[in-house]
Amino acid sequence: MSKAIEVGIIMGSKSDLPVMKDAAEILDQFGIGYEINIVSAHRTPELMFDYAKNAHSRGIKVIVAGAGGAAHLPGMTASLTPLPVIGVPVKSSNSIDGWDSILSILQMPNGIPVATVALNAAKNAGILAAKIIGASNPDVLNTLSGYMEELKEKVLDSAKDLK
Amino acid sequence: MSKAIEVGIIMGSKSDLPVMKDAAEILDQFGIGYEINIVSAHRTPELMFDYAKNAHSRGIKVIVAGAGGAAHLPGMTASLTPLPVIGVPVKSSNSIDGWDSILSILQMPNGIPVATVALNAAKNAGILAAKIIGASNPDVLNTLSGYMEELKEKVLDSAKDLK
Amino acid sequence: MSKAIEVGIIMGSKSDLPVMKDAAEILDQFGIGYEINIVSAHRTPELMFDYAKNAHSRGIKVIVAGAGGAAHLPGMTASLTPLPVIGVPVKSSNSIDGWDSILSILQMPNGIPVATVALNAAKNAGILAAKIIGASNPDVLNTLSGYMEELKEKVLDSAKDLK
Amino acid sequence: MSKAIEVGIIMGSKSDLPVMKDAAEILDQFGIGYEINIVSAHRTPELMFDYAKNAHSRGIKVIVAGAGGAAHLPGMTASLTPLPVIGVPVKSSNSIDGWDSILSILQMPNGIPVATVALNAAKNAGILAAKIIGASNPDVLNTLSGYMEELKEKVLDSAKDLK
Amino acid sequence: MSKAIEVGIIMGSKSDLPVMKDAAEILDQFGIGYEINIVSAHRTPELMFDYAKNAHSRGIKVIVAGAGGAAHLPGMTASLTPLPVIGVPVKSSNSIDGWDSILSILQMPNGIPVATVALNAAKNAGILAAKIIGASNPDVLNTLSGYMEELKEKVLDSAKDLK
Amino acid sequence: MSKAIEVGIIMGSKSDLPVMKDAAEILDQFGIGYEINIVSAHRTPELMFDYAKNAHSRGIKVIVAGAGGAAHLPGMTASLTPLPVIGVPVKSSNSIDGWDSILSILQMPNGIPVATVALNAAKNAGILAAKIIGASNPDVLNTLSGYMEELKEKVLDSAKDLK
Amino acid sequence: MSKAIEVGIIMGSKSDLPVMKDAAEILDQFGIGYEINIVSAHRTPELMFDYAKNAHSRGIKVIVAGAGGAAHLPGMTASLTPLPVIGVPVKSSNSIDGWDSILSILQMPNGIPVATVALNAAKNAGILAAKIIGASNPDVLNTLSGYMEELKEKVLDSAKDLK
Amino acid sequence: MSKAIEVGIIMGSKSDLPVMKDAAEILDQFGIGYEINIVSAHRTPELMFDYAKNAHSRGIKVIVAGAGGAAHLPGMTASLTPLPVIGVPVKSSNSIDGWDSILSILQMPNGIPVATVALNAAKNAGILAAKIIGASNPDVLNTLSGYMEELKEKVLDSAKDLK
Repeated sequence: MSKAIEVGIIMGSKSDLPVMKDAAEILDQFGIGYEINIVSAHRTPELMFDYAKNAHSRGIKVIVAGAGGAAHLPGMTASLTPLPVIGVPVKSSNSIDGWDSILSILQMPNGIPVATVALNAAKNAGILAAKIIGASNPDVLNTLSGYMEELKEKVLDSAKDLK
Repeated sequence: MSKAIEVGIIMGSKSDLPVMKDAAEILDQFGIGYEINIVSAHRTPELMFDYAKNAHSRGIKVIVAGAGGAAHLPGMTASLTPLPVIGVPVKSSNSIDGWDSILSILQMPNGIPVATVALNAAKNAGILAAKIIGASNPDVLNTLSGYMEELKEKVLDSAKDLK
Repeated sequence: MSKAIEVGIIMGSKSDLPVMKDAAEILDQFGIGYEINIVSAHRTPELMFDYAKNAHSRGIKVIVAGAGGAAHLPGMTASLTPLPVIGVPVKSSNSIDGWDSILSILQMPNGIPVATVALNAAKNAGILAAKIIGASNPDVLNTLSGYMEELKEKVLDSAKDLK
Repeated sequence: MSKAIEVGIIMGSKSDLPVMKDAAEILDQFGIGYEINIVSAHRTPELMFDYAKNAHSRGIKVIVAGAGGAAHLPGMTASLTPLPVIGVPVKSSNSIDGWDSILSILQMPNGIPVATVALNAAKNAGILAAKIIGASNPDVLNTLSGYMEELKEKVLDSAKDLK
Repeated sequence: MSKAIEVGIIMGSKSDLPVMKDAAEILDQFGIGYEINIVSAHRTPELMFDYAKNAHSRGIKVIVAGAGGAAHLPGMTASLTPLPVIGVPVKSSNSIDGWDSILSILQMPNGIPVATVALNAAKNAGILAAKIIGASNPDVLNTLSGYMEELKEKVLDSAKDLK
Repeated sequence: MSKAIEVGIIMGSKSDLPVMKDAAEILDQFGIGYEINIVSAHRTPELMFDYAKNAHSRGIKVIVAGAGGAAHLPGMTASLTPLPVIGVPVKSSNSIDGWDSILSILQMPNGIPVATVALNAAKNAGILAAKIIGASNPDVLNTLSGYMEELKEKVLDSAKDLK
Repeated sequence: MSKAIEVGIIMGSKSDLPVMKDAAEILDQFGIGYEINIVSAHRTPELMFDYAKNAHSRGIKVIVAGAGGAAHLPGMTASLTPLPVIGVPVKSSNSIDGWDSILSILQMPNGIPVATVALNAAKNAGILAAKIIGASNPDVLNTLSGYMEELKEKVLDSAKDLK
Repeated sequence: MSKAIEVGIIMGSKSDLPVMKDAAEILDQFGIGYEINIVSAHRTPELMFDYAKNAHSRGIKVIVAGAGGAAHLPGMTASLTPLPVIGVPVKSSNSIDGWDSILSILQMPNGIPVATVALNAAKNAGILAAKIIGASNPDVLNTLSGYMEELKEKVLDSAKDLK
């Protein structure tokens, strides 16, 4: 694909892929270029450093990072880049109903925000990445307005089925 | 102030102002234009509709919305605009230790993300708004890199005091 | 059915129907007229506005609203109508054990109450709707007294089986 | 006062009065007649039985019941009357941050609903009682519409102050 | 069985029986007489009143009461009898992971204690009933000491298997 | 005092005394003999062993044990005596809102029950101890019936004040 | 095996073995000698006393203790030995989502620490035991550095598969 | 001080010092050499990398790391060193009652353990560090046995005061 890569999707473990692929799919649907990688804060900390430090000079505009349990990847990435980082709390097999994933991503200290989405909501992370790009790109903003119209139509259709 | 207004800060009640003003202050520090308003999802729903529907055509690029308890303002605003919406869960007087504020902002359904920050973390909401603008504005990106350097210097200084 | 429609049952998504149909069934049993619709706070906000604003002038006396996760439908509906709104927290697939659904419906600010029932308790929402109608309708009040007698008989019967 | 008593406000302990008086005040404001009593499920169970059993034949239309901790008053009252019962979870001194009060009022079994409002939200309980009466009383419905307009005006005024 | 009935086992619904029968089985094993009944606080409040008021004059020494969700049976029974009441929080189908059952049984106000055991721990409720009887009955106390020895032997045996 | 000692009150730390003295005071009021000691599961484990192993041969009928945080005293005592043990979860300075105290006392495994009362409810522990003694002592049972009457009178009096 | 036994693995019940065997397997992999036993705090308290009191004089350097529910084994063991004790909260069948296991192991009072690992994380307990031994054993420290390299390689390999 | 530095105490912010100094004080009391530094995972990530990577080659045997909120310092340090890392969850001003601090330190993935102690329990972290050193140092082991005797004496003394 020859599109510029604007979104970097990373996750702490290959086992997060069934959740995190939803971010990739919606970006495909919106026609936004992305890359997808496994970068573990705890098992490959040097790789995480390199990835986070260099992302913006490679042209990446937004990073989407997913992890579960004591989920340090989104916050540590945010500490190493001026780019906006979207965190996806993953309800992984070692997570306590997702509460650990949520709190260790959401509750970042002042100075280092992570834009946290709902538990397992990688699709919403992809949409949020598009909204961030759309903030300064009228074409993407239009795509998003169209997407919201589609959501509405689907609800209206399902409501018709009810009757 | 003649700067373009790029960030819209809204909150559900005037009692949220002591928390939400931190977003304004950090944007001032970064030299980013903003406006600040009280827009209640539950008491002024029509105003919320108008605000959210028209923000992007007025040039707003990011909305920062803070609310507490059953906090519907960030999510409802997000349902009415293609712009990225940052949600600040406020630990208001009617909130149960902040859990209601967090969950009713964070746990949005697929299609309508809200970029949630930590409890009462309006400062981080302001920084995140800057990061979103900086994603396509090299000057703001530079400002953010400088800000992160300052954070580092402050820690190193406080570490010196320790000795 | 030629009965007057007194209860409006709405839900945020068709996936809430297996829970919410219990409200309809008990109203059928009580002989109270109702309508049932899908109205999403986040995907069809304009529809929600119209529905909530006009319900009382169409003769609706009570609204039963069910939603899950960051569940804004009951509270937003309540902000747009003088009618009593009963909220059903649904343990939907994106909910964290139901806590988000409960808190985002229950913890409404002063001025805008939602009559919240137990998690997934659409049947109780239907009964509560009947009780609200029965508050000024002796026939319905009698029906409710009879229903409570039946509950008692069933317990006494099951107790006999035990012996 | 010569108004008919339409709302019965009860609470488990005199220590709940500072919270529960808010229900009385808003009913005063709306011009709706009420009575207020201390009825303890655990210390005066016979009194609770008598109160709940006879309320509807005395002309009461709605019961508002507040209690804290293992809060059985609202649910037990609901089990003894065909009237709608509104439960106010009180954050009493023996409550664990209100969670016990909320869950022991909200999570009623099928057949016996309690219309639960937010923690300590006796004011909302009073408004909900008015909404229930208003469901079949156009004057009260009008009063409620007017009240919602006032809430809106207050927000708009406080927003002006901000500027 | 000609043994005197010393323990009354009650539960809110027949669906609690698979949990509550464990109390009966351990009392059988200890040779202590008991009766078992379904008594619903919410659906048969009058029956509950009669049962609780008369238990001690019928020779009952301890009441074991199990219920789930907003579980009022143990506490309401305790409010109507001078006998010790043991509460079993049942993780019923309408319970939120058992938290509602636990808190609405455990958090009784001063004056009216319920001896609460672990979630679903009806067996422990039976043992506790035996301990209460054993407090003034040396034979039962001996049986309990023997039972604790058996527990020890079983652990020591299972430890041997490990090797 | 020449009364036989029937209740042993123990606590993990002197800092638990302001809570635990309530158990002693109500037993004084009921005329039941007791002793009170500091026995730490973690700092004086041998003392705990001796105390628990020998209590029943010294004539103690019930043990009331209070502790906070990872509260092991009630459960460990129960593992060493055939007597009923009442556990008081104390909201000590190192406790997380009392949740750790409650769960580490309540959730005992099958075979070793602890009769758990509400957070900080040492008074209820004393009443429960009296109820256990009263199960086989008609005089104490009468005292308890009288005590419950007094509770009722106090509520009725406070209700009069209201009017 | 003729290796010196340096780690003692104990657990409260044979049912904890499927979780706790992970500690043994990783110690096998690291070539560190261990023993494994069932020692119940509540059913074999004397055995627990003997085990904990004598472990260090038998040459044990670290104790790994796993238990679920009201999990007293790790803390009680720590109160009886100067050795470091690692606690594994087990999500046993009687545990409430693991919260009771975690809090009753983690929240030890000052003076008696337990080194707590994540829920069911017996493998990490084994690694932590090795790290404790490695703190004064360069060979084990090297083994650990090698193990961390292997973790890194596995992530990098799984990342390649992604592409 | 000429003692060898065996323990490295680090914390994320100078505001953690009032809690974390307790670790230093108990190590002073035990005569164990330590150093104390401020190292922020989020504001000085490079410093954290250097510190963690080089600690063991500087002769450090144990690292004690304290942090609050989304507390990444203990886990990230553990990912960069073969040494045992003790994590102290700090109830900092931005923490939600300590739950975020605990979960983001405790719930580490397999491979990278952190020895977590109770909320704010820096004293216990210091004792645990001593226990780790004592595992291979008989003098420190003796000191610890003596310390545990002192704890016992203090309890016995406070028990005497009671009488």
